[in-house]
Amino acid sequence: MLPANRLWLSEGAIGMLQSLRYYCQKTPRKLRICEAISHLEVGTKIKVQGWVRSVRPQKENLFLHVNDGSSLQSLQVVASSELNHRLLTFGSAVEISGSLVTSPSRKQEVELQADQIDVVGECNPVDFPFKIKEKHGLEYIRQFPHLRCKTNAFSSLLRIRSEATTAIQQYFKEKGFIQIHTPVLTSNDCEGAGELFQVEPAGQKKNQDEEGHQHFFSVPAYLTVSGQLHLEVMAGAFPGVYTFGPTFRAENSQSRRHLAEFYMVEAEISFTQSLEDLMKVMEDLFRSTTEHLLAQCPEDVALYHKHVSPGYRDNVDLMMKKSFNVITYTEAINILNSSSKKFAFKTDWGCDLQTEHEKYLVKHCGDVPLFVTDYPYALKPFYARDNEDQPLHTAAAVDLLVPGVGEMCGGSLREERLDLLKTRLAQAGLDETYGWYLDVRRFGSVPHGGFGMGFERYLLCVLGVDNIKDVIPFPRFSRSCPL
Amino acid sequence: MLPANRLWLSEGAIGMLQSLRYYCQKTPRKLRICEAISHLEVGTKIKVQGWVRSVRPQKENLFLHVNDGSSLQSLQVVASSELNHRLLTFGSAVEISGSLVTSPSRKQEVELQADQIDVVGECNPVDFPFKIKEKHGLEYIRQFPHLRCKTNAFSSLLRIRSEATTAIQQYFKEKGFIQIHTPVLTSNDCEGAGELFQVEPAGQKKNQDEEGHQHFFSVPAYLTVSGQLHLEVMAGAFPGVYTFGPTFRAENSQSRRHLAEFYMVEAEISFTQSLEDLMKVMEDLFRSTTEHLLAQCPEDVALYHKHVSPGYRDNVDLMMKKSFNVITYTEAINILNSSSKKFAFKTDWGCDLQTEHEKYLVKHCGDVPLFVTDYPYALKPFYARDNEDQPLHTAAAVDLLVPGVGEMCGGSLREERLDLLKTRLAQAGLDETYGWYLDVRRFGSVPHGGFGMGFERYLLCVLGVDNIKDVIPFPRFSRSCPL
Repeated sequence: MLPANRLWLSEGAIGMLQSLRYYCQKTPRKLRICEAISHLEVGTKIKVQGWVRSVRPQKENLFLHVNDGSSLQSLQVVASSELNHRLLTFGSAVEISGSLVTSPSRKQEVELQADQIDVVGECNPVDFPFKIKEKHGLEYIRQFPHLRCKTNAFSSLLRIRSEATTAIQQYFKEKGFIQIHTPVLTSNDCEGAGELFQVEPAGQKKNQDEEGHQHFFSVPAYLTVSGQLHLEVMAGAFPGVYTFGPTFRAENSQSRRHLAEFYMVEAEISFTQSLEDLMKVMEDLFRSTTEHLLAQCPEDVALYHKHVSPGYRDNVDLMMKKSFNVITYTEAINILNSSSKKFAFKTDWGCDLQTEHEKYLVKHCGDVPLFVTDYPYALKPFYARDNEDQPLHTAAAVDLLVPGVGEMCGGSLREERLDLLKTRLAQAGLDETYGWYLDVRRFGSVPHGGFGMGFERYLLCVLGVDNIKDVIPFPRFSRSCPL
Repeated sequence: MLPANRLWLSEGAIGMLQSLRYYCQKTPRKLRICEAISHLEVGTKIKVQGWVRSVRPQKENLFLHVNDGSSLQSLQVVASSELNHRLLTFGSAVEISGSLVTSPSRKQEVELQADQIDVVGECNPVDFPFKIKEKHGLEYIRQFPHLRCKTNAFSSLLRIRSEATTAIQQYFKEKGFIQIHTPVLTSNDCEGAGELFQVEPAGQKKNQDEEGHQHFFSVPAYLTVSGQLHLEVMAGAFPGVYTFGPTFRAENSQSRRHLAEFYMVEAEISFTQSLEDLMKVMEDLFRSTTEHLLAQCPEDVALYHKHVSPGYRDNVDLMMKKSFNVITYTEAINILNSSSKKFAFKTDWGCDLQTEHEKYLVKHCGDVPLFVTDYPYALKPFYARDNEDQPLHTAAAVDLLVPGVGEMCGGSLREERLDLLKTRLAQAGLDETYGWYLDVRRFGSVPHGGFGMGFERYLLCVLGVDNIKDVIPFPRFSRSCPL
């Protein structure tokens, strides 16, 4: 007898009941591959749809592996040789009906005994850039942005990226942050840092007039380089806000760490007066996202830790086991200056840290993520909070440097004091442009701070991937914007 | 005695134990307002931080309402008149410590007996554009994009928007869809629909050269009008994919339904051959998101249904209770032509449906969301699947029209047949540009389809808001891009 309250049935029991129901039906049940291999439906007639990953015809039997992207694992299909077909090639799309049975082989727990195989989309093996049984490197598959999702490596990457997105959003939701869709189009340039993309309607020459009177938005409009200032607006009404979206830099670089369009997670926390609060959020975010990935996509992550960056799992375990380190910028400069290593860039107090310095510091401090705090005031943008520690003169800013990558996060307390901010904006000649930003300090200003995390750099750090172009679906960089 | 296994403690019990712990401590516990009013911490010393929503000094006591954006509800604070201060004004930021007690009034369950009140950020009531006790309309507050989050209406909207985002992502995750970050920058124009924004680095005249040899990306680059084609690429390796992000139109319009930058949810489903499959996902998405909102932000939604669009809750309940309707385009045209209403635009078979038609059809069919299917082939973009039903000649396309708004979703089966697609692209002179898109049909093509939902239009429909500028944090439209 069934218990009255179905809630008391275990998931396994529900699965078995469902199997029973479908076993009695004539139409085979459509399952995703991840469901088929989950072992719950053994003995049932099912139908799967996916793409052929291997074809192995033998004398009496035909063996296929079919993958539908629902997991890294493919489903083994066994069929009578009569079901073989010339269109059944690597990469072709198929629909297969049959019985799910326990596999006699040790390689997999279940396999599909096929009754029927239909090729719904063919794939010419001569023209298809990926070849059966060949291991293509990331650099090779990168040449085919419209097809690389059909490889194991990139299909895993996309599942990982999707899960990491979920993890980040869950983290902030649990902590009570409100997600804000900060705009891509903006009339301010945030850091005055240059390297902006400008936007006008296509084919309207007049809008691009030097005189500036014909802009679509009346004013010049740019692609955002950071949602920070817009988040700061919202931090004037919420305990915490965050944004997660695309960010742009018109950098003329072909580096392995930079893209023209990349994703940033940015958070802003109200009523905080210490960098420690910010660092705690950054470290927690890293840990909870990484824990989520290791738990939710173990096979996909393992593919990277085995085949792309062998042995890298140990590095990740080390980062997760140890606390992140914290040093001040001044301590960082002392470490660099005491080193016997020759750096290409200067390491005087007041100089910006370069990637070579960042990587050295991380290694020096134990190869776990490293916070560097209290940078020279002159190096930081107008919004960074003045530590008022002259003659040194630093700002309450912090970067998080990670193994193999260097800078992954940057944050600061923001200058909430109207008079100090006014003076600094006036010195920079920006007080008119940022009148609205001063207003935010005028009406219920609170001490606050925030940070941004480069999402692709996070993925590089966790997967041990070397090139940022390999962790984003459609990389855009100088001279490259296909599709 | 505490049970050995803490997992067996109810949430309430854990909360009480925590309260007990903090009660014994000297430092008051910092709580968000939503936690304070949740009633679990009565009797404890707490500290809250937020913004003053009302100040009511009486002879012996001072009454304040403090809000921190964690909920629509504010916390009532009662203090001795001695704690009053001239800076304690509407909009000022405060930190208040005291004891959380049961309120003697019926208006709220708990209130804070203040021991200490600190004004951390003042707010000059003369300059502050929002006035105490005044009800400002949405149009008025829209003038202050950097401050409007400090009003109840917009603070509610931002919480609703954040929750709706969560709901949408949960829906797709539960259904096994992979989230893809489709690019904002693209070298294709998707529908050839015009109204594109073009992108080049700021201040580099040469990049905008008519000859086109100096583009930053080597080719002209645009802001995406849809992630569909990029999703279709990914639909070649997954059962279902979706994207949720900003989309752009350089439309020179000041309409209440259009923005230059707006959010779209787009999904693509592999191995589907019927519009019914797509319609099911659209309807389910609408229902599950709306259920989530009504359950998770009942007060915020009620603010809109009471004060912004009185009585609108009935409309929402009707949409949730009844099934969505389905008619063909041909039936729609017949309905319009049998109507006694005079339309500004033509209603001949072959004409596009205008907003006036859409709204009429929705009303006519019972004021619940309405699917219109099988539009004239000639009206639809190259990727829509040919129904091959000449002489009528329609495409397997569907729009979802909703009360008050008109079109909220548009979708179609995609032409997966290489030969048909080739012919159509060649006729449009697009076969070279879309060589990669043809490739997707060449290598393991599957029948598939998808749709896009305008996220702001969804919010208009659920909240009964009239103007799209009131449901997005920073609206961008022709001649307007402040901040």
